[in-house]
Amino acid sequence: MNYNIAVVKGDGIGPEIVSEAMLVLDKVGEKFGHSFNFQEVLAGGCSIDKNGIPLTEETIEICKNADSVLLGAVGGPKWDEVPSEKRPEKALLGLRAALGLFVNLRPAQMHKALADACPIKPEIIGDGFDILVCRELTGDVYFGKHYRRESDKGWGETGADDMNYSVYEVERIGRRAFEMAMKRSKKVCSVDKANVLETSRVWRETMHRIKDEYPEVEYTDMYVDNCAMQLVRNPSQFDVIVTGNLFGDILSDEASMITGSIGMLPSASMNESGKGMYEPIHGSAPDIAGKGIANPIATILSCAMMLRYSFGLKAEADAIETAVENVLNAGHRTADIAAKGEKVLSTSEMGTLIREQL
Amino acid sequence: MNYNIAVVKGDGIGPEIVSEAMLVLDKVGEKFGHSFNFQEVLAGGCSIDKNGIPLTEETIEICKNADSVLLGAVGGPKWDEVPSEKRPEKALLGLRAALGLFVNLRPAQMHKALADACPIKPEIIGDGFDILVCRELTGDVYFGKHYRRESDKGWGETGADDMNYSVYEVERIGRRAFEMAMKRSKKVCSVDKANVLETSRVWRETMHRIKDEYPEVEYTDMYVDNCAMQLVRNPSQFDVIVTGNLFGDILSDEASMITGSIGMLPSASMNESGKGMYEPIHGSAPDIAGKGIANPIATILSCAMMLRYSFGLKAEADAIETAVENVLNAGHRTADIAAKGEKVLSTSEMGTLIREQL
Ligand SMILES: CC(C)[C@H](C(=O)O)[C@@H](O)C(=O)O
Ligand SMILES: CC(C)[C@H](C(=O)O)[C@@H](O)C(=O)O
Repeated sequence: MNYNIAVVKGDGIGPEIVSEAMLVLDKVGEKFGHSFNFQEVLAGGCSIDKNGIPLTEETIEICKNADSVLLGAVGGPKWDEVPSEKRPEKALLGLRAALGLFVNLRPAQMHKALADACPIKPEIIGDGFDILVCRELTGDVYFGKHYRRESDKGWGETGADDMNYSVYEVERIGRRAFEMAMKRSKKVCSVDKANVLETSRVWRETMHRIKDEYPEVEYTDMYVDNCAMQLVRNPSQFDVIVTGNLFGDILSDEASMITGSIGMLPSASMNESGKGMYEPIHGSAPDIAGKGIANPIATILSCAMMLRYSFGLKAEADAIETAVENVLNAGHRTADIAAKGEKVLSTSEMGTLIREQL
Repeated sequence: MNYNIAVVKGDGIGPEIVSEAMLVLDKVGEKFGHSFNFQEVLAGGCSIDKNGIPLTEETIEICKNADSVLLGAVGGPKWDEVPSEKRPEKALLGLRAALGLFVNLRPAQMHKALADACPIKPEIIGDGFDILVCRELTGDVYFGKHYRRESDKGWGETGADDMNYSVYEVERIGRRAFEMAMKRSKKVCSVDKANVLETSRVWRETMHRIKDEYPEVEYTDMYVDNCAMQLVRNPSQFDVIVTGNLFGDILSDEASMITGSIGMLPSASMNESGKGMYEPIHGSAPDIAGKGIANPIATILSCAMMLRYSFGLKAEADAIETAVENVLNAGHRTADIAAKGEKVLSTSEMGTLIREQL
């Protein structure tokens, strides 16, 4: 089969890590008889530099027409002074909206080989944990109206944002979460703030309605403040966490940090038709950009998610994940995950080792 | 001096822990020549049981007329089926609004004697940490309009909440944060989501304007998702964290859990005139209610905050804090903070030991 992939290398370490991931896809193609065609496009800071805006219509069109999108990372201090409407991050938000990527899957899994890097004590972690944060990505206060008004109490200029969720949006993300749970440990924890927010009350009512469609799944509700605590207290209690865009932003980052190896974590953002955008959860790390020392694993594992979720290529996805596992188990490390005194590999050395395992 | 304190013992373990704290205040009064007059009022679940609503006008009036309010904890599964408008939590939100308690101080401090209980690895914690979360408490999406509407995209019923901050509200909480920092390690980290929210952009602009009034304070901005990570990665980097109501709810709970001893943490909520409501940050713990085993220390330390912040009684506050410190250093523990095999004290035994130290 032929797959067309739009590639947004982006800023900072983006180009280095994406290049390694593309070579991994080539290798998978060779081995399994697929061909992956890459079309590179600009988005984020590099697009601001070239076109004055972080996301052009051309980039959007190419991403829409591709079978999926591979993204490195966007942004960096270089564009800190750019007015907020033109910041590199707008490229992410714009692509999510343009492609309708309403579901964002962020696995937070502790790799056994990297247990030492976990910031939480081993007595709490036990045998490790494997959380899938299923974050809604095209709604909530992110995509409600953002505006300024005069305070009606005479308190001056007021920034305002419309937080909201409709029944349809909650059903759509909720079903995805239950479907994911059916393939995993059959537990869904829905996180909201229903004791305060109407948005959350619609969220919770809707979840309670659809949970009956999945009688095998153990369902619980949790308040977002409690969830922020429970992730630290006992991460192993979670299987799938489903939540809105804003809470998902915060909790998925917290969960990633709890794994201790943020350079390892991939993500998938998908729409109804299965098309997706795949990217590492870490940022563009401008401090180490261009040095060839960044860890390409999160991007490579994002490719595995692409193969699995957008292309339905399960064996191919498994092959990448196993290759990464083997390389880690053999003790190979990039700088970010190396213990003191351990030998440190470059970005391309790590990529090469993973390809050799394939 | 004479001080009138309205006392909301509340639900679950509330009555047990508040009783111990009242005895501690009595002892402080004896020693330093003050008299604390307590007037007990109902709020939360017990008020629902008696009056059908969680917060009566009478309770509000008494709290308003008192010099400050001491609160145990409200809520519990008994009231889970109560319609959302009448839930026990509404008592908290109602009291915050009625008394104008716009600043919520939540110290998250690791007690050296309890370092073993900290879920984070000792290499990360080092010499411990001492964070003061300064959360805005009467604004944000908590107190904007909450309502339902039809989706304009045909997506069905929609829950909506108005998130907003005015310049005045941000200045007010911001200055409090800087003032607290001046008495501590002179660092303020302001947390927002200015890359997405207009509310946060007004927040950040205002903070940047007032920070120049405090040139000695080192000021930084941080996105809320990053802060949720940094609290796990390196909590010692923080001194004062100032943030809005919603982010403060999440981050202060996360920070508390990172101390590992949530039964120890007090909080203060204050208005412009210095009147305050003081309460432990832990909940009503219905599973252990009535057994006399709850840890009263968070409530006792909340009284110390009351003496310091509402009454300006610094020596008296210090005396309570030192008494608690001494009791902990001598190895005394309630069940929640005892290591395996350690002798476990009852609520009243712990209260008595602390009073003996005074
Ligand atoms: C850059 C920012 C707008 C974005 C978000 O908040 O969604 C990022 O934090 C993420 O999680 O992908
Ligand atoms: C009970 C709830 C409404 C409350 C809040 O969210 O403010 C609580 O979580 C708190 O932090 O005091």
